[in-house]
Amino acid sequence: MQTNDKLVIGGKEFQSRFILGSGKYSLKLIEAAVKYAGAEIITLAVRRANTKEQENILDYIPEGVTLLPNTSGARNAQEAVRIARLARELGCGNFVKVEIMRDAKYLLPDNQETIKATEILAKEGFVVMPYMYPDLNVARDLVNAGAATVMPLASPIGSNKGLATREFIQILIDEIDVPIIVDAGIGKPSQACEAMEMGAAAIMANTALATAGDLPVMASAFRQAIEAGRQAYLAGIGRVLTRGASASDPLTGFLHD
Amino acid sequence: MQTNDKLVIGGKEFQSRFILGSGKYSLKLIEAAVKYAGAEIITLAVRRANTKEQENILDYIPEGVTLLPNTSGARNAQEAVRIARLARELGCGNFVKVEIMRDAKYLLPDNQETIKATEILAKEGFVVMPYMYPDLNVARDLVNAGAATVMPLASPIGSNKGLATREFIQILIDEIDVPIIVDAGIGKPSQACEAMEMGAAAIMANTALATAGDLPVMASAFRQAIEAGRQAYLAGIGRVLTRGASASDPLTGFLHD
Amino acid sequence: MQTNDKLVIGGKEFQSRFILGSGKYSLKLIEAAVKYAGAEIITLAVRRANTKEQENILDYIPEGVTLLPNTSGARNAQEAVRIARLARELGCGNFVKVEIMRDAKYLLPDNQETIKATEILAKEGFVVMPYMYPDLNVARDLVNAGAATVMPLASPIGSNKGLATREFIQILIDEIDVPIIVDAGIGKPSQACEAMEMGAAAIMANTALATAGDLPVMASAFRQAIEAGRQAYLAGIGRVLTRGASASDPLTGFLHD
Amino acid sequence: MQTNDKLVIGGKEFQSRFILGSGKYSLKLIEAAVKYAGAEIITLAVRRANTKEQENILDYIPEGVTLLPNTSGARNAQEAVRIARLARELGCGNFVKVEIMRDAKYLLPDNQETIKATEILAKEGFVVMPYMYPDLNVARDLVNAGAATVMPLASPIGSNKGLATREFIQILIDEIDVPIIVDAGIGKPSQACEAMEMGAAAIMANTALATAGDLPVMASAFRQAIEAGRQAYLAGIGRVLTRGASASDPLTGFLHD
Repeated sequence: MQTNDKLVIGGKEFQSRFILGSGKYSLKLIEAAVKYAGAEIITLAVRRANTKEQENILDYIPEGVTLLPNTSGARNAQEAVRIARLARELGCGNFVKVEIMRDAKYLLPDNQETIKATEILAKEGFVVMPYMYPDLNVARDLVNAGAATVMPLASPIGSNKGLATREFIQILIDEIDVPIIVDAGIGKPSQACEAMEMGAAAIMANTALATAGDLPVMASAFRQAIEAGRQAYLAGIGRVLTRGASASDPLTGFLHD
Repeated sequence: MQTNDKLVIGGKEFQSRFILGSGKYSLKLIEAAVKYAGAEIITLAVRRANTKEQENILDYIPEGVTLLPNTSGARNAQEAVRIARLARELGCGNFVKVEIMRDAKYLLPDNQETIKATEILAKEGFVVMPYMYPDLNVARDLVNAGAATVMPLASPIGSNKGLATREFIQILIDEIDVPIIVDAGIGKPSQACEAMEMGAAAIMANTALATAGDLPVMASAFRQAIEAGRQAYLAGIGRVLTRGASASDPLTGFLHD
Repeated sequence: MQTNDKLVIGGKEFQSRFILGSGKYSLKLIEAAVKYAGAEIITLAVRRANTKEQENILDYIPEGVTLLPNTSGARNAQEAVRIARLARELGCGNFVKVEIMRDAKYLLPDNQETIKATEILAKEGFVVMPYMYPDLNVARDLVNAGAATVMPLASPIGSNKGLATREFIQILIDEIDVPIIVDAGIGKPSQACEAMEMGAAAIMANTALATAGDLPVMASAFRQAIEAGRQAYLAGIGRVLTRGASASDPLTGFLHD
Repeated sequence: MQTNDKLVIGGKEFQSRFILGSGKYSLKLIEAAVKYAGAEIITLAVRRANTKEQENILDYIPEGVTLLPNTSGARNAQEAVRIARLARELGCGNFVKVEIMRDAKYLLPDNQETIKATEILAKEGFVVMPYMYPDLNVARDLVNAGAATVMPLASPIGSNKGLATREFIQILIDEIDVPIIVDAGIGKPSQACEAMEMGAAAIMANTALATAGDLPVMASAFRQAIEAGRQAYLAGIGRVLTRGASASDPLTGFLHD
């Protein structure tokens, strides 16, 4: 089905609702993400962008793809702001994913420092996409601080555990007016599909692709699942019965009735 | 992605893994199922096929689509066998979905009568696709009786409740050598996708489409979700962490580390 | 809380709703089940009851405890009937748990053979408690065949996986008039508690106790969890909100409101 | 089973692991909580404690029960601190539950303001028990600020939805060294039992009791379920099989084997 349904972030329009999360920038993963998953946004750890090794990696990014530098490695707002500015100086554009972690075991975002960095960077003209632990009060603060989207985690990054925060991501979708992009923890296409059915605006993934047996095929699966979930959301999902069954055929009933 | 992956039932090859379950045969539903969900098999309650009203319905079925008459209304093996034979006489072909229900509230299949009907019909040359309550011993009996596929329910028909029998459908997929087609109860594309990721061969649905807000869009969503789940299954899904997280980027770690 | 709430099977009254499933009859397990879990019914594999080794085991069973011989090892109705008769001859009483398995990997009960054995044994005056795969049609047949209770599995025996058949056990509880005793797969007290909250009449367990770190303490935990679930069922569980929250305190609201 | 297992908060020992959350202080609820649920700690909205109406309510609190004033109604740290001090002046002791909410629809705690209030009150000698949204970084900050316990919500308050934050409460239990008390959203004894099996130190509830059909019986059910969960945690829960089954009886196997 062709639709005019588009994802808009920072005034820019995207057809695709799959975003490649930061990770191993193998040529193979980037190719698969763009060619098979249809990614139009690719996340990149900025620390890699100013090394010789990284120059090659930037060469891999196809034209027309929006680069989303992230502040991976930052432990507080100040470090994140510094990384974001460096990214812009390096020519990575004005989109930035704020990612601030204090916790080395679960790699959970520091919501409070993320709010601070978002406020500073939004004022400097960045399109700020903050990675966050799904907390309604924090999401409101992020929007007030100028966030262009809110990016709650589904479960701990790299875990492939799926929608452990389902209930609270639904609350964000219901209450927050910027696009909700589910980031981290999505392990299977069906989970991406479910998040989209709930009303998420997009899905960010990396580990689910990187750990799959066949990368291009899994990339293609994610693209289709995300499109399916979006369509289902737009179509309107049918009611669920609490008890009993319902014959779909009005003629159902027994032969001799 | 183009693949040579095909669903084979009774020696016949199908590209599509979505089967339209029996239900209200509105022109709109059949059109949506074929055009947007890509259905190549459409179920039809036989009792409708010998009425004047039904002649019109048969006219709706596009060329190239395999008709799957079902024995809806049958309360025992004998009635099911009679309906199946009638269907063949009416020119509906030799595929038949055996559907025997005793229970009017939950419309759960009668496994034992289904085995009996399957045995008789398979001997008469039918391609028998039995609807069943997911029970490993029964699935084995059905295969021994000559079933071409086994069609376990996900949850009570028309309930849109999803994979309530998940654990036991997985056992069927792991242990039974004919295609496992998940039938009844699938309410959302994400559930169809998950069943396919588990290794189901196809999905049958009707109510999920019929109760959706926008039928063609939901039909399209199901097609994509089913293809996504199939691809994910073929690609091989990545490992799930029990505890902790895993940085997808080998460079992840803190700035001053 | 003291109540007059009793479990009645075959005209016999029980205070306890924990039944010790068949398993390793170590002195320790039997003691724990009776002393700490409050078991008044203990299952015993009949094949052990006519060996010298078993004579010791029968000695372990405290007075006042009802022995529930099972037909473990039977692969069809005929074998089960033979074992049940043997048990009665050996003085094990007229209670019998019919347990017929064809499948060595998942050890799932053969519903159809179980119906046959139940019918024969009920006519011979046994109090028949059939172990079954939770299927409403089969449960009805078992009751018609004279079953005193119906014993659906929660998940594969010994798996500790919990209520994988939740949806269908609820249907049995709602539709079947004899006590529904959840048997096999219950791995934790919270799962036993949930089954009781749903309206189950009793819980049978063995592996959950046998694999626990501290057997007597886990036995005690099961007893309390089962009593808790029963009380909650009798008390009536409160409504669940679909969305939003509800201040429990009518004074909740903000200071300056 | 008698054990020496005790809950210690602020140097004070408690036998009971059920805490009555704040709510409608009907005589009936307090009586049920103390008599049937065994509550030794009862939460009280401080705003009620300085009214005439409230004087009666304080009279209801039995001797030996620890009063836990909460800061319900506070929208920021400053207001919470003021309420806490008022409570101490009114003779409510030095325990305080910090509860700061900005959000009127979901009543979710404001983690950041809660950290601030905790720090101030802990320095003033209060035993601070902060209600919080389960976020590992915040829990660490609360402990560093001097919190005596951490009280994460299970799901939105009053919703009876259960352990929607299961995954993240487990992380708190695994990583945080003060008692984790699960507060808000627990709707059934089985859910309280599960939280205790996971290693929670105690459960706070109110709505689950207040909305039950029979208050004293439900109170008793909660007490038993919480004790059961605690015992199961201490005993050590058995392994769960990923696939297959496991005969509990070493003699299981077929008759003619």
